[in-house]
Amino acid sequence: MGRAICAAVHSDPELDLVAAVDPAIAGEAAEGVVVASTPEAIGRAGAEVAIDFTVSSAALSNASWCAENAVHAVIGTTGLHEEAFEQLAKMFSQGTANCIIAPNFAIGAVLMMRFAEMAAPWFETVEIIELHHDGKLDAPSGTATLTAQRLSTARRARPGGSPARGGGQAPAARGSETAPGVRVHSVRLRGLVAHQEVLLGTTGQILTIRHDSLDRSSFMPGVLLATKEVPHRAGFTVGIEALLGL
Amino acid sequence: MGRAICAAVHSDPELDLVAAVDPAIAGEAAEGVVVASTPEAIGRAGAEVAIDFTVSSAALSNASWCAENAVHAVIGTTGLHEEAFEQLAKMFSQGTANCIIAPNFAIGAVLMMRFAEMAAPWFETVEIIELHHDGKLDAPSGTATLTAQRLSTARRARPGGSPARGGGQAPAARGSETAPGVRVHSVRLRGLVAHQEVLLGTTGQILTIRHDSLDRSSFMPGVLLATKEVPHRAGFTVGIEALLGL
Amino acid sequence: MGRAICAAVHSDPELDLVAAVDPAIAGEAAEGVVVASTPEAIGRAGAEVAIDFTVSSAALSNASWCAENAVHAVIGTTGLHEEAFEQLAKMFSQGTANCIIAPNFAIGAVLMMRFAEMAAPWFETVEIIELHHDGKLDAPSGTATLTAQRLSTARRARPGGSPARGGGQAPAARGSETAPGVRVHSVRLRGLVAHQEVLLGTTGQILTIRHDSLDRSSFMPGVLLATKEVPHRAGFTVGIEALLGL
Amino acid sequence: MGRAICAAVHSDPELDLVAAVDPAIAGEAAEGVVVASTPEAIGRAGAEVAIDFTVSSAALSNASWCAENAVHAVIGTTGLHEEAFEQLAKMFSQGTANCIIAPNFAIGAVLMMRFAEMAAPWFETVEIIELHHDGKLDAPSGTATLTAQRLSTARRARPGGSPARGGGQAPAARGSETAPGVRVHSVRLRGLVAHQEVLLGTTGQILTIRHDSLDRSSFMPGVLLATKEVPHRAGFTVGIEALLGL
Repeated sequence: MGRAICAAVHSDPELDLVAAVDPAIAGEAAEGVVVASTPEAIGRAGAEVAIDFTVSSAALSNASWCAENAVHAVIGTTGLHEEAFEQLAKMFSQGTANCIIAPNFAIGAVLMMRFAEMAAPWFETVEIIELHHDGKLDAPSGTATLTAQRLSTARRARPGGSPARGGGQAPAARGSETAPGVRVHSVRLRGLVAHQEVLLGTTGQILTIRHDSLDRSSFMPGVLLATKEVPHRAGFTVGIEALLGL
Repeated sequence: MGRAICAAVHSDPELDLVAAVDPAIAGEAAEGVVVASTPEAIGRAGAEVAIDFTVSSAALSNASWCAENAVHAVIGTTGLHEEAFEQLAKMFSQGTANCIIAPNFAIGAVLMMRFAEMAAPWFETVEIIELHHDGKLDAPSGTATLTAQRLSTARRARPGGSPARGGGQAPAARGSETAPGVRVHSVRLRGLVAHQEVLLGTTGQILTIRHDSLDRSSFMPGVLLATKEVPHRAGFTVGIEALLGL
Repeated sequence: MGRAICAAVHSDPELDLVAAVDPAIAGEAAEGVVVASTPEAIGRAGAEVAIDFTVSSAALSNASWCAENAVHAVIGTTGLHEEAFEQLAKMFSQGTANCIIAPNFAIGAVLMMRFAEMAAPWFETVEIIELHHDGKLDAPSGTATLTAQRLSTARRARPGGSPARGGGQAPAARGSETAPGVRVHSVRLRGLVAHQEVLLGTTGQILTIRHDSLDRSSFMPGVLLATKEVPHRAGFTVGIEALLGL
Repeated sequence: MGRAICAAVHSDPELDLVAAVDPAIAGEAAEGVVVASTPEAIGRAGAEVAIDFTVSSAALSNASWCAENAVHAVIGTTGLHEEAFEQLAKMFSQGTANCIIAPNFAIGAVLMMRFAEMAAPWFETVEIIELHHDGKLDAPSGTATLTAQRLSTARRARPGGSPARGGGQAPAARGSETAPGVRVHSVRLRGLVAHQEVLLGTTGQILTIRHDSLDRSSFMPGVLLATKEVPHRAGFTVGIEALLGL
């Protein structure tokens, strides 16, 4: 993951890769890039932005170092709890450095969720189909669960909204009602990667919003966008929605 | 339904509409077409083929009249039981008239089921998504159930076939295992008509076979095909598969 | 069309059908509804809102009558020119009656265009596939052309946007570049109704926004929405975007 | 490619990897596998089947060695000409060794083409949409061109077949008529891999057959199938259609 991000930063004409931090690879150097096992390398290299894709135990102290040293932070590390978010908000409220943290950097997935939410009040019925490779153990996916919750909330405001009927002999055929009024169907097939579609239906028409993530690189455009935007987003920002004008 | 079939026959350049039988509309006449309340009109009009879309209680006696009067029969009436099929097979074994009866005249649906069945042995995983309007009360649909059964049988011959994993917190998300190893997901949305897709997955690839029935007229090409073919199909034929070269 | 709208208004629990105007059916009456051949019936019936799906030659005088008689107007008549829009804007600027006119009342199509436009700046590449029945004579469709123009404008702001490569031996395979940087592919098939999808691609991911109009009734939810909203939208409103919160 | 095939053979429970031949890696050895720079290693290792994914200049002499040494051959090398096929047919007609050569080992793509061909006679209209990453320089793709040719031939037998209308102001919107009566639309987007769908339309219904190749590994199941089947397919076989029961 670290190497992939370094490569992406390196090949973006608007960005310069000046340092890479990895506990395992200290001492190794390439193309004028400072490589070190501690965040101090970031300071030595004069980095303006630090990108953190580590583990929850390390992310907080890395962020703290950034805040103290006036280096903006983009955090993609997952597993941070409510309390950690509060600490980050405080750290980056001093005005010297900004922080963007996002649970999902896949631009297309973030847009899909927002568009579905915007459309939901205007359709009597909505269902989600998420499709993943057959090695995925959980169902529904985290993205589908979050989408269902947001759709359910968005539909609550709808006057006269009615859930789809269904059931009969095999209730499981109608999927899981993951959030009130929103059913999710989880397909698992060898060969799939990560896909989701939201189907919204009203009289005579269907609106479908689908996201196909065909490669692990799908989060990269979001990371690069956040890296370019973080100097201009004062304070602490959660999610890339605001960066996308949503 | 009767009027729709009359219109379709009338506008097909290879067919002539010579008579229409409807208990309710006897006496009415249009464009040189004999209209009557009893099958005898078919004889008077010199029809070569009779198309029966009536009710199960009438279809058998209509068919019997056809067999005795050397008129070929195309039957789309549903709800006939095993015993009725045996009687029909006997009636049309004399060589004077032929009969084609089909539970499904939608050419695309019949091809979808056959193609899915042919493909099934070569894919580790297969699932069905069927999508219908939100007024449909049963789930899964009859076509989806039949497809699942045929896929399951076709996969049984596969050496080393493995069902998709799944389940977790919300087992219903993974659909109904309508036949061994084949899960069905039933989507119900306002605005949909009748749609089904079969998704087959193996290493690095997905094959999808989808049928969209967007209008009640979707069974018409199959009825017209059967009407043209029934003089050449000796005896009693069930389903239009053979007519499609399957 | 008029009958379909009357039926839709009649069956909406929030609306009352009080009058129907049709030059051809004057004198006919049903269920306490005033039926007449001139707009005056609207006044006699005490209508709050008039819905006009007529022809461009009649729409303007109908609207004028509404504005003068303090009846709000919802106009779905097409073919009105720039000048007519200016006259309408003036008529409904007096504060006694409001007007909503829309070139497209299909809620799903309007959302599709807006979402595609919102997403466009974040994707290097975008193409449109529109699919219609084989009786449609023009290509691309009006909706596809409008979508392409809006996408092209939305992408112009994108730093470093690059059009998709292509061409080779058969340039027509790459569709029509209907607006700069946006190619449109028009599919024509027997059995289709009216469908469009916008595909947006960036690193590792695809976002697809698709609208299926499966029935002529697809514009009805938009007409009913406008009818309920027009008393609250002061003055002259073009398009239903604002009603959808877009 | 060679390493990927070695890994796939190695992990298949029905196959044993006994040798690997690569001019560049002679001398290197792993897990009891003979690794050499010349085909003789195949003989020393006692291989029953050799898999050749090399270059057209080497494939023929490799195949010749196999035929002479009673080792069955599976050939995935592309770029071989008509004459080479004739030589291969002669080499493998002696009865000591068999050969399967295929231009396309992606099982799903082969099935898609065959199913589309089988369905074509029953639909008035058919079009192809192929979608690839934006780095692909040619359009239409080779698979789309081949599919169009096979569809066109299959439709020729259809009585009364009619091509879709279209054109108008922007004829390119209607795609390239790659074969008589069959239009192809080529979509190129960042993030796509290799996808194709064949859409067939008749009254009231659409049949869609789609293949998504999401990873370069998509040809692997076909290679493994050919490797298992080649001992049982006497002589010289072109394409994997026969292995799939088509």
